Amino acid sequence: MASSSSATPQGSLAHLLPPSWKTCVGAWLAEDTPSFDYAGFVVGEAPRVATLWGKSAGVIAGRPFFDEVFAQCGCTVEWHADEGSELDLSTGGKARVATVRGPVRGILLGERVALNSLARCSGIASCSRDLVTRVRAAGYKGILAGTRKTTPGFRLVEKYGMLVGGADAHRMDLSSMVMLKDNHVWSRGSITDAVKAAKSVAGFSMKIEVEVQSEAEADEAIEAGADVVMLDNFTGDGVKIAARSLKERWQGKRHFLLEVSGGLRPDNVEPYVCHGKSASFMNVPFIELGREANRRRCGHYLDEFDSPRGTARRLFP
Amino acid sequence: MASSSSATPQGSLAHLLPPSWKTCVGAWLAEDTPSFDYAGFVVGEAPRVATLWGKSAGVIAGRPFFDEVFAQCGCTVEWHADEGSELDLSTGGKARVATVRGPVRGILLGERVALNSLARCSGIASCSRDLVTRVRAAGYKGILAGTRKTTPGFRLVEKYGMLVGGADAHRMDLSSMVMLKDNHVWSRGSITDAVKAAKSVAGFSMKIEVEVQSEAEADEAIEAGADVVMLDNFTGDGVKIAARSLKERWQGKRHFLLEVSGGLRPDNVEPYVCHGKSASFMNVPFIELGREANRRRCGHYLDEFDSPRGTARRLFP
Amino acid sequence: MASSSSATPQGSLAHLLPPSWKTCVGAWLAEDTPSFDYAGFVVGEAPRVATLWGKSAGVIAGRPFFDEVFAQCGCTVEWHADEGSELDLSTGGKARVATVRGPVRGILLGERVALNSLARCSGIASCSRDLVTRVRAAGYKGILAGTRKTTPGFRLVEKYGMLVGGADAHRMDLSSMVMLKDNHVWSRGSITDAVKAAKSVAGFSMKIEVEVQSEAEADEAIEAGADVVMLDNFTGDGVKIAARSLKERWQGKRHFLLEVSGGLRPDNVEPYVCHGKSASFMNVPFIELGREANRRRCGHYLDEFDSPRGTARRLFP
Amino acid sequence: MASSSSATPQGSLAHLLPPSWKTCVGAWLAEDTPSFDYAGFVVGEAPRVATLWGKSAGVIAGRPFFDEVFAQCGCTVEWHADEGSELDLSTGGKARVATVRGPVRGILLGERVALNSLARCSGIASCSRDLVTRVRAAGYKGILAGTRKTTPGFRLVEKYGMLVGGADAHRMDLSSMVMLKDNHVWSRGSITDAVKAAKSVAGFSMKIEVEVQSEAEADEAIEAGADVVMLDNFTGDGVKIAARSLKERWQGKRHFLLEVSGGLRPDNVEPYVCHGKSASFMNVPFIELGREANRRRCGHYLDEFDSPRGTARRLFP
Amino acid sequence: MASSSSATPQGSLAHLLPPSWKTCVGAWLAEDTPSFDYAGFVVGEAPRVATLWGKSAGVIAGRPFFDEVFAQCGCTVEWHADEGSELDLSTGGKARVATVRGPVRGILLGERVALNSLARCSGIASCSRDLVTRVRAAGYKGILAGTRKTTPGFRLVEKYGMLVGGADAHRMDLSSMVMLKDNHVWSRGSITDAVKAAKSVAGFSMKIEVEVQSEAEADEAIEAGADVVMLDNFTGDGVKIAARSLKERWQGKRHFLLEVSGGLRPDNVEPYVCHGKSASFMNVPFIELGREANRRRCGHYLDEFDSPRGTARRLFP
Amino acid sequence: MASSSSATPQGSLAHLLPPSWKTCVGAWLAEDTPSFDYAGFVVGEAPRVATLWGKSAGVIAGRPFFDEVFAQCGCTVEWHADEGSELDLSTGGKARVATVRGPVRGILLGERVALNSLARCSGIASCSRDLVTRVRAAGYKGILAGTRKTTPGFRLVEKYGMLVGGADAHRMDLSSMVMLKDNHVWSRGSITDAVKAAKSVAGFSMKIEVEVQSEAEADEAIEAGADVVMLDNFTGDGVKIAARSLKERWQGKRHFLLEVSGGLRPDNVEPYVCHGKSASFMNVPFIELGREANRRRCGHYLDEFDSPRGTARRLFP
Repeated sequence: MASSSSATPQGSLAHLLPPSWKTCVGAWLAEDTPSFDYAGFVVGEAPRVATLWGKSAGVIAGRPFFDEVFAQCGCTVEWHADEGSELDLSTGGKARVATVRGPVRGILLGERVALNSLARCSGIASCSRDLVTRVRAAGYKGILAGTRKTTPGFRLVEKYGMLVGGADAHRMDLSSMVMLKDNHVWSRGSITDAVKAAKSVAGFSMKIEVEVQSEAEADEAIEAGADVVMLDNFTGDGVKIAARSLKERWQGKRHFLLEVSGGLRPDNVEPYVCHGKSASFMNVPFIELGREANRRRCGHYLDEFDSPRGTARRLFP
Repeated sequence: MASSSSATPQGSLAHLLPPSWKTCVGAWLAEDTPSFDYAGFVVGEAPRVATLWGKSAGVIAGRPFFDEVFAQCGCTVEWHADEGSELDLSTGGKARVATVRGPVRGILLGERVALNSLARCSGIASCSRDLVTRVRAAGYKGILAGTRKTTPGFRLVEKYGMLVGGADAHRMDLSSMVMLKDNHVWSRGSITDAVKAAKSVAGFSMKIEVEVQSEAEADEAIEAGADVVMLDNFTGDGVKIAARSLKERWQGKRHFLLEVSGGLRPDNVEPYVCHGKSASFMNVPFIELGREANRRRCGHYLDEFDSPRGTARRLFP
Repeated sequence: MASSSSATPQGSLAHLLPPSWKTCVGAWLAEDTPSFDYAGFVVGEAPRVATLWGKSAGVIAGRPFFDEVFAQCGCTVEWHADEGSELDLSTGGKARVATVRGPVRGILLGERVALNSLARCSGIASCSRDLVTRVRAAGYKGILAGTRKTTPGFRLVEKYGMLVGGADAHRMDLSSMVMLKDNHVWSRGSITDAVKAAKSVAGFSMKIEVEVQSEAEADEAIEAGADVVMLDNFTGDGVKIAARSLKERWQGKRHFLLEVSGGLRPDNVEPYVCHGKSASFMNVPFIELGREANRRRCGHYLDEFDSPRGTARRLFP
Repeated sequence: MASSSSATPQGSLAHLLPPSWKTCVGAWLAEDTPSFDYAGFVVGEAPRVATLWGKSAGVIAGRPFFDEVFAQCGCTVEWHADEGSELDLSTGGKARVATVRGPVRGILLGERVALNSLARCSGIASCSRDLVTRVRAAGYKGILAGTRKTTPGFRLVEKYGMLVGGADAHRMDLSSMVMLKDNHVWSRGSITDAVKAAKSVAGFSMKIEVEVQSEAEADEAIEAGADVVMLDNFTGDGVKIAARSLKERWQGKRHFLLEVSGGLRPDNVEPYVCHGKSASFMNVPFIELGREANRRRCGHYLDEFDSPRGTARRLFP
Repeated sequence: MASSSSATPQGSLAHLLPPSWKTCVGAWLAEDTPSFDYAGFVVGEAPRVATLWGKSAGVIAGRPFFDEVFAQCGCTVEWHADEGSELDLSTGGKARVATVRGPVRGILLGERVALNSLARCSGIASCSRDLVTRVRAAGYKGILAGTRKTTPGFRLVEKYGMLVGGADAHRMDLSSMVMLKDNHVWSRGSITDAVKAAKSVAGFSMKIEVEVQSEAEADEAIEAGADVVMLDNFTGDGVKIAARSLKERWQGKRHFLLEVSGGLRPDNVEPYVCHGKSASFMNVPFIELGREANRRRCGHYLDEFDSPRGTARRLFP
Repeated sequence: MASSSSATPQGSLAHLLPPSWKTCVGAWLAEDTPSFDYAGFVVGEAPRVATLWGKSAGVIAGRPFFDEVFAQCGCTVEWHADEGSELDLSTGGKARVATVRGPVRGILLGERVALNSLARCSGIASCSRDLVTRVRAAGYKGILAGTRKTTPGFRLVEKYGMLVGGADAHRMDLSSMVMLKDNHVWSRGSITDAVKAAKSVAGFSMKIEVEVQSEAEADEAIEAGADVVMLDNFTGDGVKIAARSLKERWQGKRHFLLEVSGGLRPDNVEPYVCHGKSASFMNVPFIELGREANRRRCGHYLDEFDSPRGTARRLFP
């Protein structure tokens, strides 16, 4: 079991991770050292202590992955910052994040893989946190959800990072919530037929979302039993009008959520925010973490294993 | 064998890919559809034709991965843009990039995975091309090389993207060129001992690089037989002085390359550029594609499968 | 892509299967022939035609798996019965189900694995169809859903069989719909806290079900936002009373489904059936396909490859 | 190494299991939790103790698999019943079978997979034991053997269950004992040629069995060197006559076993039993664990993790 | 299915290979090209024809593996020599063995892996053929069997090579025939107990062999029901005496084979050969392909892809 | 991390092995025991101590593999001989090499796999050591390098053995140093174009070697920037003449190594040795470990687990 001790009042997100993902970590290490570890021969197995420093602002995320990389290299990790915490750079512009102990070749073997995992995951968490903060400041009370636009083979880490950052992970994959987009509808013939077909196989345990381009399509989707209706490429005003209208028409008859997607960015989200009564109507209106997040999510704000170069040049003083 | 036909005068980079990487693609598809494909049931297997549109400027890269994703979904891809070409957005702000043909559920099954691969790879290629262009404009004639700061499990795609963009892929992994950093040297005792140990196992077929913080260390590394010497965190002037000095001291005695790394960005690369004679000395001085590239490499400039919404709303007209 | 041609008006369930499951079939074949195929040497590769006969009543299910086993053995399959159809044994007590063509060693190599898959899957479909038929005859209009009590490693086939038989597959795994049972509630402290915690990570795209032992617990679960409430071990009368009472109390305020589970069998389902108004209230009350189904699901009603022994003794006439 | 302590005077069947099968268990767990374990987040990692109760009569089998599932979830198992023992339901209609200790999310993560393994394995063992008991009561002294009609991917567990139940596992796969059925013989031309071909590759270390439909065929098989002769679809009297006749003809010249197969059920086995001298002739006449066993082998007679609901409702008191 | 057309009157040994082994070939190729194929980029995909030349005497073996390597590289192979045939070097000291056609990078990608497989397999076949020939010349009429002293991960190829060379493959692995050596007996307490325990789990379908150091031990093993008795480290005379004595004692009572093992070499095998009556007694006395075979089995008698250097220097004229 | 303690002044070669190779060992064990371990049942899990004896002269190599096999079987290994040491057979013709402790079935389960790994690895190390010694005695001061003619799937062990024996491992695979042979050159058009193409993708971190048949080709390769030039099938005198000539022509202009390959054997190496000045010119002229090494590398000079038969017959006294 993951041994991360970042227990928060809300529980530890590390507890979301079943043991089966750990085989991925073995594959990551094998990718970085497919045959011989020449430098490992150079340094040997003397015990060492290394420090992980953070040098740019952001949210720490991905501790379980970092832990497991080093565990597979025979090292242990002691953390000085909670999962999900903001880095405190007030002292000398950097923060001591973790201490890694183990044979020196183990530390150097895991270093790059562990940093790559942590930095990518932290980048996504930082970006998610940032967007959530900005839409909250704009008055938005709904959900901000991620996408499936993740790196192939690395989705678990990236979705986990979204959760640490405070975003909703949205559906994990095609076998989770059924999403019927325009192509599905067009291929099936109608929204009604598409939803009916989806329900016949997905059953009661899975939600069904339908992408619509108009209020009329939204009505058809709701009538057919969609759990979520995505208003695609609506303007901010269009969203507000449609939300109010749909609310009045279906109140007490059907239950559904509204999703707004397409072209949303932090700097244009304000008009989409539904205040007042509409908030009480739409349980969880939400906005997809779109292109902007993708563009920024891989910011490596955590520096590599680093040494206090001002006073001592070596990692292992 | 990959069937990408992007043969250029210099050869097709797709020819770098042995068939073994294709099993990765199967894993990517399994990640996105771990059990049932509910929406696939909705749409069925009628034959369809879909178009890939590009909507933002950038370099096309990753065609072999895109091809293979769809091949495994029973679809074929026809390309309208060469691997490595810049998107031509002069017509309506978008470019027809490829046509995908196959059973509709196959197209929709592969869509997201294929786009994620292509977009990430193209983002890295675009960023690499951009940096190369900028340092060339600043007069730099050496090599611009990438890093191992790649997404765990996805390195092959990302290194391939660097090559498409015109950068040097640098070493692929720890089993390629031996790099001895300060921690290796410190653990081994001296640069001389570290290089000697590395040579005893890596043999004649592999290059050895040593990271140094001073000219004295550079001298020791060269004396010991390093193939590449990395000047770490030198200033622009420091690089020029060290390069000239090392050149004069070792000319005709030893053969080595100089690598400059640490804190380089497009906006500060100019002072590091070595003009004149020093260029003839250092065969291939180069600059690491560093933090900047990491931050920008995942730009999803390619939009999803898209339809000409102005005239017809559906993907399959 | 699976090539099963069992297109029904509702679509082909084979379209639920993404290509990634096919690697399982390779593992099944490897299990049955870990090293040499001695009998394959004996028979060689001459082309042969074999017939699959069905000899006991039941529903045909699992054609895609049967197809893939033989495809991997270099054989093709022609079907004479639709996926989901009942075997017609009116002629001589047996029915011609499929014809397999290919090299004789391929046919014999795939025979047992193909039959094991088809027979198990058909057994589950037959049992599911039977139960659905019986509860429908008793007036039940809700959903009959399966369980996770499947054979480890073989769930995809077994869930698929449930769908072919007309049952709801229920949740596929722990990463699908969140189910909070008494142990979860007890560990978390209260139903309210458990649902809140689940929502904080599962997000808007996933349903949450809570198992309750009383109406009071049901109220708490609904109040907390559960999508499905499972009445555990209620009597038939208890279910009816609780359903009516919950309906009246929450109408227009919350949306939820009721699930009834525990000890239900075809012979005692009648009292649980909710007629009249309650049916309009509970969108989809359903009954778990429980122990009874498990006990019977593996009925091998399909005989092995067989020959018309009365007239000719050999499989290949 | 498996740590099951069920050492009997005859040894522990757990010792049949090499460590390599444990990777299967990882795959089973991954099947049940492909991505996030939402409920695991809800409950966290506090230490808990859970009890496994047995509620229906039967044989306990599959402890090593149950152990390994929980070991991979960070839990330990203490057993209160021996592998192969009959459940004692004399106290309150149920029996305490095992105690599981570990972090609560680990217990709940492994619960269903562990129960599915144990219940299936115990079901097969129970059915095997039952059949053995019945044919022994009918005077049968030979071997009762299982089949290859097992669940694809799960054969090791099911064969192990047969052994625990007292049956012979028969051949494990196509790479074990060579079985030549009518199709093999027909394809090769004659029984003699088929046996000769099989011997040329299977060598001295492997047994060869031939399926025959008549005494004449049996003679040919024995002459050719078959180790086992299967009398296919003979009547009870036919078996007795053939056995006596073959015995007299080949005594002192050839060594062979007789297998009887096809349509045998507990209720019709009596006529096939060979008493008296014939028993001394056929070293190990045996009967295949046929259709009947298949139909019943998956009886889930072990209930889920359960709590003493009369006194306390929770699993973890 | 393997497409090797080396059908002999006895059948094609390629028919022993089920499709599942082909995944191994993918792993071999991945081992030889873990990431980029730089030279493949250099040569591209123009179609080429390459010739495989044999330059030293020996037996051709391993065609199915060679075929599959090239198939996975997109190439086809045409053979000019049968599997199991001796190379004919009468023309110019070399023989044209096969022609490989395909894209040039495919040919060069598969070249080394294909040659390594074929050369190792042919080396083992050649050594086996040689030993068989020599013991036959010495009058030996029994079986010559191989060992489990094979290269880890490569056993299938090596056992296949033994068969092509005319040797018996002996048991494939620990899950095949049960072999009880002195350590097993000592641990269990007695030969009788060890055989009894083995029979209780291995059942009727598997042979049991016991290693003995004396005639008394042989008697105990035969009495207990061993199918094969291995006379370990007996002298040639000792073997003859023991064989005759055991024969007389057990004739008509038990059936068993004798195996002779330990220290046998081609140059000392003659005394072990049992002539006359003893041959009729011991069905298949045999000699292990021991150390000698191991020492020579990897002879790479097949040269690499080669060109007729006398007339043209290039592979692709 | 591998725990082999064979630290030498130059470091432990076991430190070359990253943890990822250990999954191979699991596959080796699974190959040798694909399903049940019948003999393991016979012997059980009582603790035992076994001794590994060496009986023929040679170099010990492969301890990490031996260790890992037994670790996966629940056993521990204590070594009495260093990795790379020569066996001391002065006492009774055999040497105590290691002691293995663990449950008896674990010892017997790992025995054959561990011995096969160790013996093959030691055989290669012994052969390599022998050749190095012989060419050194002939005055050779350059490098002796191995080949890619290794057993498919087993290269890591065999390359490791070469290193232990004192040879250079040469390039590991096609993704390491680029080697351009005549076929590459011919396909590309010229040596110059081929080297240029290789450099465009392999970059600065990888060496490029070109195979040449004449001095003129060598000049072209050096001019194009080859790091290593292989003189293919030159006579001894030809090598000396070419080396001197190339040296004079390129001194101070280009840096390159010379490799001599083709038909070299210990008994004909002397003429190729370059004395005097040429040694100072060619940094590391070297000779490939060719056919001779292949032929002998698998010498199983280590006997099986063995007992002091003179005094006690059993492995476990």
